[in-house]
Amino acid sequence: MTLENPTSAESPTAQADPGPARVRLAAVGLGRWARVMARAYTGSEVVELRSCYTRNDERRAAFAADFGCEQDESLAALLARDDIDGLVITAPNDQHAPIIEAAAAAGKHVYTEKPVAVSLADIARIRRAVLGSQIVFACGHSARRLSGLREMKRILDTGTAGSPSMVEAVFGNERGLELKVGDWRADPVQSPGGPLTQLGIHQIDNLQYLLGPARRAVAMGQAPRPGIANELAVGVLLEFDSSLGYLGCNWLSPGSFTIDMYCTSARLRYELDFTWWSKSAQTDAHTRLTRTVIAADSADPDARVLREEEVPLPPRDHLREEIEEFGRAIAGPATVEVGLAEAVSNVAVLQAAARSLAGTRPVEVSEILAEVEEA
Amino acid sequence: MTLENPTSAESPTAQADPGPARVRLAAVGLGRWARVMARAYTGSEVVELRSCYTRNDERRAAFAADFGCEQDESLAALLARDDIDGLVITAPNDQHAPIIEAAAAAGKHVYTEKPVAVSLADIARIRRAVLGSQIVFACGHSARRLSGLREMKRILDTGTAGSPSMVEAVFGNERGLELKVGDWRADPVQSPGGPLTQLGIHQIDNLQYLLGPARRAVAMGQAPRPGIANELAVGVLLEFDSSLGYLGCNWLSPGSFTIDMYCTSARLRYELDFTWWSKSAQTDAHTRLTRTVIAADSADPDARVLREEEVPLPPRDHLREEIEEFGRAIAGPATVEVGLAEAVSNVAVLQAAARSLAGTRPVEVSEILAEVEEA
Repeated sequence: MTLENPTSAESPTAQADPGPARVRLAAVGLGRWARVMARAYTGSEVVELRSCYTRNDERRAAFAADFGCEQDESLAALLARDDIDGLVITAPNDQHAPIIEAAAAAGKHVYTEKPVAVSLADIARIRRAVLGSQIVFACGHSARRLSGLREMKRILDTGTAGSPSMVEAVFGNERGLELKVGDWRADPVQSPGGPLTQLGIHQIDNLQYLLGPARRAVAMGQAPRPGIANELAVGVLLEFDSSLGYLGCNWLSPGSFTIDMYCTSARLRYELDFTWWSKSAQTDAHTRLTRTVIAADSADPDARVLREEEVPLPPRDHLREEIEEFGRAIAGPATVEVGLAEAVSNVAVLQAAARSLAGTRPVEVSEILAEVEEA
Repeated sequence: MTLENPTSAESPTAQADPGPARVRLAAVGLGRWARVMARAYTGSEVVELRSCYTRNDERRAAFAADFGCEQDESLAALLARDDIDGLVITAPNDQHAPIIEAAAAAGKHVYTEKPVAVSLADIARIRRAVLGSQIVFACGHSARRLSGLREMKRILDTGTAGSPSMVEAVFGNERGLELKVGDWRADPVQSPGGPLTQLGIHQIDNLQYLLGPARRAVAMGQAPRPGIANELAVGVLLEFDSSLGYLGCNWLSPGSFTIDMYCTSARLRYELDFTWWSKSAQTDAHTRLTRTVIAADSADPDARVLREEEVPLPPRDHLREEIEEFGRAIAGPATVEVGLAEAVSNVAVLQAAARSLAGTRPVEVSEILAEVEEA
């Protein structure tokens, strides 16, 4: 201890030190996912939930009470506050653009749930708003932060698995069995390709995280429920730089979330019990990554032996980590991993697949990106 | 015991009864697979291996010695014998047509390894030869006889899993890593789509067995090895009557053989350790079928619970069963499950996928079938 450091850990002053100021967030759009997100960062030392807003008075009051935060009666009132640094937007996809425009104009940082937007016109609006501002912009693609995804990427980067030639990513659940005629999820404009927009977008981000940008897509869909115009099961083939991807999405079967990578020296398989997805502190405990290798090689193909090994997965918290990264990027020089470019690139792949659904013709992702820039 | 039944089990006469005569087969084409097949039906009470033929004298003599059968010095000599009922053809794909034509002309029944043929001209020749004869024709698609495939089909038929919306079938192994320039497997004409022709054809049969006829195909391929013109990894989307199929084939990764079915009430997953494929009496012991259901439903999607159950798989012998069925169809009124129509239909799907590879345009299976009929 020196005189130069009078407020050391032992001093009363230090004990009362509140630590670095936490980044102050407000939740906008207060549906189910807003609650999942708020739970994920409750207790964070990086960010705090300061206020919230949604049009519905009752829902807003309930959210404020449940999470012990303030509430604002309008988005304008929220954005006018000096004590809010950023927004966590979980409003419906088609409301992202106007909220982000208003936030950017007010200098508020933005974290938005995926997809950043669905229509190319909305994406163009968001792009202009964010690029014309100084705000930190993050898009919620937390799946790439699951421990198994990080391990897959690490294994690929070390080269021990060899080169991937095929990757198959699947995401499905049973929500299509509950769809009613008129539901926005049943509308091909609001949710192109049905589960592709809502579920597939997660795996699109994972695939691009693992393999780099997808170049083109060809897709097929099925809409097997009478009265529902939208596809409820969609398969997409994706061309990457030197490997081939498959994306399977459906809304007609018990939850599934898997990634299979076929590499020259090993196969990797990731499985997640989808029912634990939204309990982000526990998700990793309900996932599994296996690596299958040729344990005994032989000139005689019938004499080769395969061995499946479990890859240990240190637990993480995909949602909290993402929000804290957003907070650190607001507070300091840190940057976010999934920003505007990544979010737009994911939607471009989604739209290439959705456009392909109509005629099953291959669609270049660059075709979509060019339209976004021109819009 | 009565006087009317003097040759009961206890009598010396009954003990000397040789039982029904076994159907007499000859192996044609004596490579690795001929040996796998011969081992599979050694000891059968339905069929016996009587003779064999291949052009190479040494290989023929070795095969005859190893399996204790006779040998013929020409196909003509073999076909002229009165004591041969049928052929088991495991010659290269492009030799099937002339051998089958000669066999049909000689009235010899034919079991041929898959694919029945690759070129549409060959298929047309085989079709004319078989349809113009009275022979029993069987094509080796034993995978559908694996215990897990039979159980999958049974579960679908009982309706307890609900309706399938998506099915993903994968078959891959590491053989492309050993490919040399000039190898027939590296030639897109002899092996369209590389692993698609050699491996994918098995899963095409499985998919059509489970779901009925595929209507159209769209495919993408990757040929990531310098100097190899053929695709080494291929993904195919297939349209079935009310569900969507994906077929993934690669020659660049440790062996994989899986089928995932996404049904409204359950997911089914089948996995086979490919290294046990050719030891057909033991294959089923190295396979696994699981059924995943919603064990606890809830209006709150975050409260739903999934349960994975193991489906018991009584052991079978996919190769022996298939050959014995062929033998019974020769001996009596029984029929074969995979005959000419099924074999041709599988190649039509294969060719639709291969044709789609060039332009990634969707190709109707009926387009290929019409060309076979016109050829």
